[in-house]
Amino acid sequence: MDLLDEPVPGVGTYEDFNTIDWVREKSKDRDRHREIATKSKESALALMKSISDAFSGWLLMLLVGLMSGALAGGIDISAHWMTDLKEGVCLNGFWFNHEHCCWNSNETTFQERDKCPNWKSWAELIVGTNEGPFAYIMNYLMYVCWALLFSFLAVSLVRAFAPYACGSGIPEIKTILSGFIIRGYLGKWTLMIKTITLVLAVSSGLSLGKEGPLVHVACCCGNILCHLFTKYRKNEAKRREVLSAAAAVGVSVAFGAPIGGVLFSLEEVSYYFPLKTLWRSFFAALVAAFTLRSINPFGNSRLVLFYVEFHSPWHLLELIPFVLLGIFGGIWGTTRLGHYPVLEVLFVTAVTALLAFPNSYTRMSTSELISELFNDCGLLDSSQLCNYANVSVTKSSSDALPDRPAGQDVYTAMWQLSLALVFKMLITVVTFGMKVPSGLFIPSMAVGAIAGRLLGVGMEQLAYYHHDWVIFRGWCSPGADCITPGLYAMVGATACLGGVTRMTVSLVVIMFELTGGLEYIVPLMAATMTSKWVADALGREGIYEAHIRLNGYPFLESKEEFSHKTLAMDVMRPRRSDPPLSVITQDGMSVEEVESLIAETSYSGFPVVVSHESQRLVGFVQRRDLVISIENARQRQEGVVSASRIFFTEYTPPQPPNSPPPLKLRGIMDLSPFTVTDHTAMDIVVDIFRKLGLRQCLVTHNGRLLGIITKKDILKHMAQMANRDPDSILFN
Amino acid sequence: MDLLDEPVPGVGTYEDFNTIDWVREKSKDRDRHREIATKSKESALALMKSISDAFSGWLLMLLVGLMSGALAGGIDISAHWMTDLKEGVCLNGFWFNHEHCCWNSNETTFQERDKCPNWKSWAELIVGTNEGPFAYIMNYLMYVCWALLFSFLAVSLVRAFAPYACGSGIPEIKTILSGFIIRGYLGKWTLMIKTITLVLAVSSGLSLGKEGPLVHVACCCGNILCHLFTKYRKNEAKRREVLSAAAAVGVSVAFGAPIGGVLFSLEEVSYYFPLKTLWRSFFAALVAAFTLRSINPFGNSRLVLFYVEFHSPWHLLELIPFVLLGIFGGIWGTTRLGHYPVLEVLFVTAVTALLAFPNSYTRMSTSELISELFNDCGLLDSSQLCNYANVSVTKSSSDALPDRPAGQDVYTAMWQLSLALVFKMLITVVTFGMKVPSGLFIPSMAVGAIAGRLLGVGMEQLAYYHHDWVIFRGWCSPGADCITPGLYAMVGATACLGGVTRMTVSLVVIMFELTGGLEYIVPLMAATMTSKWVADALGREGIYEAHIRLNGYPFLESKEEFSHKTLAMDVMRPRRSDPPLSVITQDGMSVEEVESLIAETSYSGFPVVVSHESQRLVGFVQRRDLVISIENARQRQEGVVSASRIFFTEYTPPQPPNSPPPLKLRGIMDLSPFTVTDHTAMDIVVDIFRKLGLRQCLVTHNGRLLGIITKKDILKHMAQMANRDPDSILFN
Repeated sequence: MDLLDEPVPGVGTYEDFNTIDWVREKSKDRDRHREIATKSKESALALMKSISDAFSGWLLMLLVGLMSGALAGGIDISAHWMTDLKEGVCLNGFWFNHEHCCWNSNETTFQERDKCPNWKSWAELIVGTNEGPFAYIMNYLMYVCWALLFSFLAVSLVRAFAPYACGSGIPEIKTILSGFIIRGYLGKWTLMIKTITLVLAVSSGLSLGKEGPLVHVACCCGNILCHLFTKYRKNEAKRREVLSAAAAVGVSVAFGAPIGGVLFSLEEVSYYFPLKTLWRSFFAALVAAFTLRSINPFGNSRLVLFYVEFHSPWHLLELIPFVLLGIFGGIWGTTRLGHYPVLEVLFVTAVTALLAFPNSYTRMSTSELISELFNDCGLLDSSQLCNYANVSVTKSSSDALPDRPAGQDVYTAMWQLSLALVFKMLITVVTFGMKVPSGLFIPSMAVGAIAGRLLGVGMEQLAYYHHDWVIFRGWCSPGADCITPGLYAMVGATACLGGVTRMTVSLVVIMFELTGGLEYIVPLMAATMTSKWVADALGREGIYEAHIRLNGYPFLESKEEFSHKTLAMDVMRPRRSDPPLSVITQDGMSVEEVESLIAETSYSGFPVVVSHESQRLVGFVQRRDLVISIENARQRQEGVVSASRIFFTEYTPPQPPNSPPPLKLRGIMDLSPFTVTDHTAMDIVVDIFRKLGLRQCLVTHNGRLLGIITKKDILKHMAQMANRDPDSILFN
Repeated sequence: MDLLDEPVPGVGTYEDFNTIDWVREKSKDRDRHREIATKSKESALALMKSISDAFSGWLLMLLVGLMSGALAGGIDISAHWMTDLKEGVCLNGFWFNHEHCCWNSNETTFQERDKCPNWKSWAELIVGTNEGPFAYIMNYLMYVCWALLFSFLAVSLVRAFAPYACGSGIPEIKTILSGFIIRGYLGKWTLMIKTITLVLAVSSGLSLGKEGPLVHVACCCGNILCHLFTKYRKNEAKRREVLSAAAAVGVSVAFGAPIGGVLFSLEEVSYYFPLKTLWRSFFAALVAAFTLRSINPFGNSRLVLFYVEFHSPWHLLELIPFVLLGIFGGIWGTTRLGHYPVLEVLFVTAVTALLAFPNSYTRMSTSELISELFNDCGLLDSSQLCNYANVSVTKSSSDALPDRPAGQDVYTAMWQLSLALVFKMLITVVTFGMKVPSGLFIPSMAVGAIAGRLLGVGMEQLAYYHHDWVIFRGWCSPGADCITPGLYAMVGATACLGGVTRMTVSLVVIMFELTGGLEYIVPLMAATMTSKWVADALGREGIYEAHIRLNGYPFLESKEEFSHKTLAMDVMRPRRSDPPLSVITQDGMSVEEVESLIAETSYSGFPVVVSHESQRLVGFVQRRDLVISIENARQRQEGVVSASRIFFTEYTPPQPPNSPPPLKLRGIMDLSPFTVTDHTAMDIVVDIFRKLGLRQCLVTHNGRLLGIITKKDILKHMAQMANRDPDSILFN
């Protein structure tokens, strides 16, 4: 009766594009665990085995953390190098990137990097000079050519070897974590191709980020490493626990925010997230973050992606611009990204490169741009954005600088940033539909950060020149440091990211980990809340949900309440006009009859009843298990022929002398199928499906079997109720 | 059929010490929501109502945050004042505490506080001097007297007015959140008395903290404020969402750690924690933290309880002492706290006060002690613990100080701390059983912090004098700052707190919020993990679970896996030898028969079947609803007498002419009772009960009703399986 002892191979497994039965999987794991625990009392070897089994989860987490951290580090370094390769090459060795090349030269500050003697731009290398329009055009051309080469390679590799490697992968991972099976989506080929093409796509300068795909990469690592441990290899539910943790690892290495990563996995991607997984995810996320930091020799030795330090507090009135940024983010979040599957990747790359090169803010990598926008201008900062007129600083003890009038460079920067904003917004919309690995986090953050910085500088100058206005009085007196444009950029980035993904707590926590200051949580929270509300009010779904629906994945959203007053009998099949439910009787059918039932229908399982007349339910049998068992019996079990009777009862009655031997199949029957009554409200049924992770549920009326509800029936019903096409639910 | 439209009052409510039916409550709320949403399309007023309904949750969260923050601030200030009152009084006004009294005097540093002229110790006030043994004894006596007075008041108030106010309240809150009803536990009387007695108990110098009880205080606020909104007042499930958020608020104000508070609620206390609650808890926790900060005029304007800033990184080898601290914490966590319900509170208070006064580390309030132990000694620090011999500092640019040899004062402090450790450990074990509000967080942290600091200073001196040892070589060279005793104290505190409560992620996050540095997460995590593993290995339960079990509350632990291979038929009632299940037939019984069934049994509900012969299930009816409905019908409905027949069917068949009018009760019947088959494995049944929050579940075999399993049956079965007394489950 125990599936584990069942000798027939294949029974209890799933086909591709099917949904797993969480209850069965978890029950199987408990059986396995019980067996090990019982045996452990018998011998020392078994005890060792039991202990190693208990610790295998932690070991696996360690490995996932190490592998993902190492891969993220590799991607980081390669992308850095290839991004710089578009501009020039290092004479010390072509494998050095710009920063590394100039590491030991005397001019090490960021602003003087162009003067480092060993780093040659392409024009310098080819025509010997970097001056004049010819050299500029030379550099321009090389930049575009490299970009085209990278994106061509990326697209070709994805198309040829791993079509699953495109996009961010987060919607599919959500679907997989909810119990769907997509074979190969987290396989080694996908991992390899995704890693390589991610580097290529990021380096090509397209408006996409590597943060989302890193979640996919980490999940691939988790899935592949699961194969090392029987416990996780053989159990779909246990494997999904590991994948949930891997998703946390992905965000942890993407932003250097382990706590935020765990919350992201909990809030955004995971379906089944027991407390044990919370704790293990946290461990894996930390391991990954530290691995990444220790192998990244070019980093600033900070754990986080964008390190920010603000010196001045914010004022309550500033909540108004913050809420405005939230509204902007919400509107950005409703942009229909990725609805334009662009085939002409090379064309988009060419346009991106051509338009990006002349503007220094679009030419630099997007994460560099965000870093610069978040930055709070210090006294010694010599970047264009920090070119303020110097006013005598009165109180030198404080870290904070008073607000100052903007210099000419700041105005130039404002123009460039405005153009960059328009460019980024347009090009991101187009880029996201392309068949390359592409994340949305960084482009969205860039859009928000630019808008925020623009607003911040505007506010700052307004406050400087009009500090006598009522709203600024007492707060922005001359010589006071009252507005931090970097904070505005951060709030804007948060708002846009929140609008697109509808993340809430995890987003605020990620941002909190970047600044480390609890003070700035309130602005971030105000922006996140506003952007979520605005986006929800304008169009209900986040980008992941939209993508899942577009692809017709069978995903039962746990955030959305089902609020219609329908009953189980309205949803179940067969409908009133349909032929009755296909059932198998526990002792009345021959192999032939069952085979013809299987051939005539395409249901993935059949209820077993006492008799057709009573319709009293005995159990449920999976189509796949039935097919495999009958086939197996016909091949191996002597004498099982078409006329053999199939028994699902505990004891087989004595057969007439000349009849063929019976086939006993109680072992493959689920003796505890879930049932609800026909009067059960659908909101309760939906709740049961979500919480328990069911595939199907049988419907009874006064104890008689009446019909069946599958996950797909529920999704179709929900689509119908929301006035969408119920046939958009494609799988399973 | 809708319970909301049911005119009989009381139907659908619960009695005290009963468990709610989560499915029914959530379904009720969805009905309510649906009704409002439908009406909102009809008129502008209804639309307004619908919008205000949607925002009422946020408003409630805001109020809970404000009220809890304000109360926590009040408790803080009062406890500060009364603690100081034990030592002396302010001449400017008796309502000033020591710090506030000396605020404007010239000697404002902590060390010179005794010289502040306006603050008079009791000896100074009475005999005019603070010198000599007589004055010392005078102060000593006053200290003990005040302590006795405070603890006497605390105990008397709790005993007289609110017996629920004692202890930390967290185990009971866990039980309430899981669906149990304890009327008055979160009422206004409990709130009032708990707030007052908490201040008294903390001020009396007993070895207890205010952090745990603050969770109870915040939950009381949440429960009381729920009464302002019908949505939350009338729905037990919705109210528990608010209480989950309130628990987060409690920890947020206790430690100034909003994120940690939310995770504490999620990991430790909550049962049903949807994502919406996560987001709202976070909001409430932030509001509360900022409220607390803004009303606390004596604070350091930091949000957090213990602000720590460490300057030097830790070395990988230091993980060994950290793990040792973890083991210590784990062993401390298995101490049988609170198993000694001490009645002689005054005796304990007297002993505590008498022993605490002579040692400056036990005389100061425990949170001051922890603050001092966490502190990293700076150059200007003049406390006893920082009395290091001055070695010429070579690199003045760095914040970090090199390791130095300890001065005489440090050795004195070590002795005093060792004595304090023994004292704290012994007295905390005794104190926790007392009938006053008492938290375990702070005393446990103090024990760990003392042990950690001792070990830290030991390591530091070892490294200083033996920096040529292999383990210190290359890391603790002379002049290097290699060991931070404050970090050891922090790790020790974390380990002990983790051992007692078995918190994991939330604990690490709370500590992370205190330091703000991701770097120190690894030591904290190592200690937390070790302490949890050690404590789990030595004795399975945390303090809250132990307390719940001791009190016999019906709490279904979600962390513990049920791993026995029993089936539903082994657990269900009636057992094989018992009389058959008490059922009601859908159309065959008279009022009299049902009344006698109710009188003869004490079951809280009855299954309704088609007929006794078929045993086919129709629905389930609650005893309470049945009693109320019959009583109501007898009083109001004309002609309903004992001979009237009760119908649960949809249509009542025509009655014979002279028979009394029938009683139709389909409206109070649950048409969708949960059923499982008798062959369902108990691990699945336990899972269903946990996930769906059921009160009872019916058991069928081949479509016939066979028995019933209640939550109490499951708990009894689990107790039996764990070789505990199944009769220890007392309620419901």
